[in-house]
Amino acid sequence: MHKTRILVSNDDGIRAAGIQSLIEVASEFGEVTVVAPNGPQSGMGHAISLGKPLRLYKETLPNGLIGYACNGTPADCVKLATGVIMADAPDLILSGINHGANSSVSGIYSGTLSVAREGALQGIPGIGFSLCNFSHSADFTTAREVARVIIREALDKGLAKGQMLNVNIPDVSLDQLQGYRMVRQAMGRWVEEFDERIDPYGQKYYWLTGKFQLDDHGQDTDEYALAQNAVAICPMTIDLTQHTLFDHLGSWSLPQPVGSTLS
Amino acid sequence: MHKTRILVSNDDGIRAAGIQSLIEVASEFGEVTVVAPNGPQSGMGHAISLGKPLRLYKETLPNGLIGYACNGTPADCVKLATGVIMADAPDLILSGINHGANSSVSGIYSGTLSVAREGALQGIPGIGFSLCNFSHSADFTTAREVARVIIREALDKGLAKGQMLNVNIPDVSLDQLQGYRMVRQAMGRWVEEFDERIDPYGQKYYWLTGKFQLDDHGQDTDEYALAQNAVAICPMTIDLTQHTLFDHLGSWSLPQPVGSTLS
Repeated sequence: MHKTRILVSNDDGIRAAGIQSLIEVASEFGEVTVVAPNGPQSGMGHAISLGKPLRLYKETLPNGLIGYACNGTPADCVKLATGVIMADAPDLILSGINHGANSSVSGIYSGTLSVAREGALQGIPGIGFSLCNFSHSADFTTAREVARVIIREALDKGLAKGQMLNVNIPDVSLDQLQGYRMVRQAMGRWVEEFDERIDPYGQKYYWLTGKFQLDDHGQDTDEYALAQNAVAICPMTIDLTQHTLFDHLGSWSLPQPVGSTLS
Repeated sequence: MHKTRILVSNDDGIRAAGIQSLIEVASEFGEVTVVAPNGPQSGMGHAISLGKPLRLYKETLPNGLIGYACNGTPADCVKLATGVIMADAPDLILSGINHGANSSVSGIYSGTLSVAREGALQGIPGIGFSLCNFSHSADFTTAREVARVIIREALDKGLAKGQMLNVNIPDVSLDQLQGYRMVRQAMGRWVEEFDERIDPYGQKYYWLTGKFQLDDHGQDTDEYALAQNAVAICPMTIDLTQHTLFDHLGSWSLPQPVGSTLS
């Protein structure tokens, strides 16, 4: 048995507090490689850099480990880690701990989850951790213990090929934590409110802001678990097909080639 | 009945040939608003701009229509269109026609599909069109006819809330086209091969390149349809939950609060 190899990345950048907490916990389980963006990459979704050269910079982390900062996106970091930096593929890819929730549809915009998803795409189990507190000075004590419990189970029970987890952690002390729940993604949306301003040169510009609107009151969702102060563990897919839509689409009339038996 | 309102965007930029083709076809069905990136945004996934002010520039398009170029991502374009530019929400959001395929897992990295997905997130039917030809001078004749057929059906039969379609079009002439198929996303992966170079200052940099590897030989997939020269129509989801994983995760042992009846 080789030593467990764990890749750690995030979207808040290599100097964020959250990733230091995750590195600390991951190091209890194996050999850790850190490749993370050299600055904030929140909201980057599953972006990759196609038209821009990527660079890696060695960086000494607070715990003395040498990590790699990258000028690309979170998904680029995983690709460079597995394609250039690591001689052997990691056994587990971890992301976070994000400063702020990635529950409901936020997972679609999240750079944190693109790290775990890139793992799943490469056949490596990926887990994204997010703490429900946006502050730079958030307390990661509870989040560290949650990460420890989940990493232990993931290594022990395993995740199958193409599987990834989205773990959201309520911002409460450990004794207030109401357990762990396996949940589905709540449906909801961000309602945008653009902040329109005029720059010093008389030109309009816009800041994207918004309010989350929950449209789903199921008790089996990530949002519900978090509202109960429970850890929300959502298994996520890389198959984006909406399999339930085929019935509806069967009523479409589309031209078919002569002699075709397809509906 | 109001006139049908159609929003058109893309990820190749407002001056790409593909979007002109889509605007041309969309204009046959209603009033078209164009808000698209002011330059290439391929591979941007579902990124949004959180730390950067967004700007809009009016631009006269080849067909005389006034469109809006935006310095943000494809998803930003949709948010600005529905939040700032359009007085009433569009009935349909179209993206493309992309120069290059967005089949299989490429849909995860695709900026084209983020436009359609942003529609679905806002409760507006979204369709992304991609032609299997990366060339700037690709022939969009077949793709225009395919878009016409599909837009007609989408407006006629409707798409439900949260639904979007990923349409990939083979690069063949119309008489060679082997019909239309409703398909699922093929499973596969991009195998990265980084091109490592040294810049004039002696520093290493990397270009992300790769080869697509198809791991799925089902005959109900987008890749299979395209290989048969058929149009591949894949319904896509904004619920990223992997519902089939809950059984496996039921075997996990996780600490629960005292008195909890949750497994």
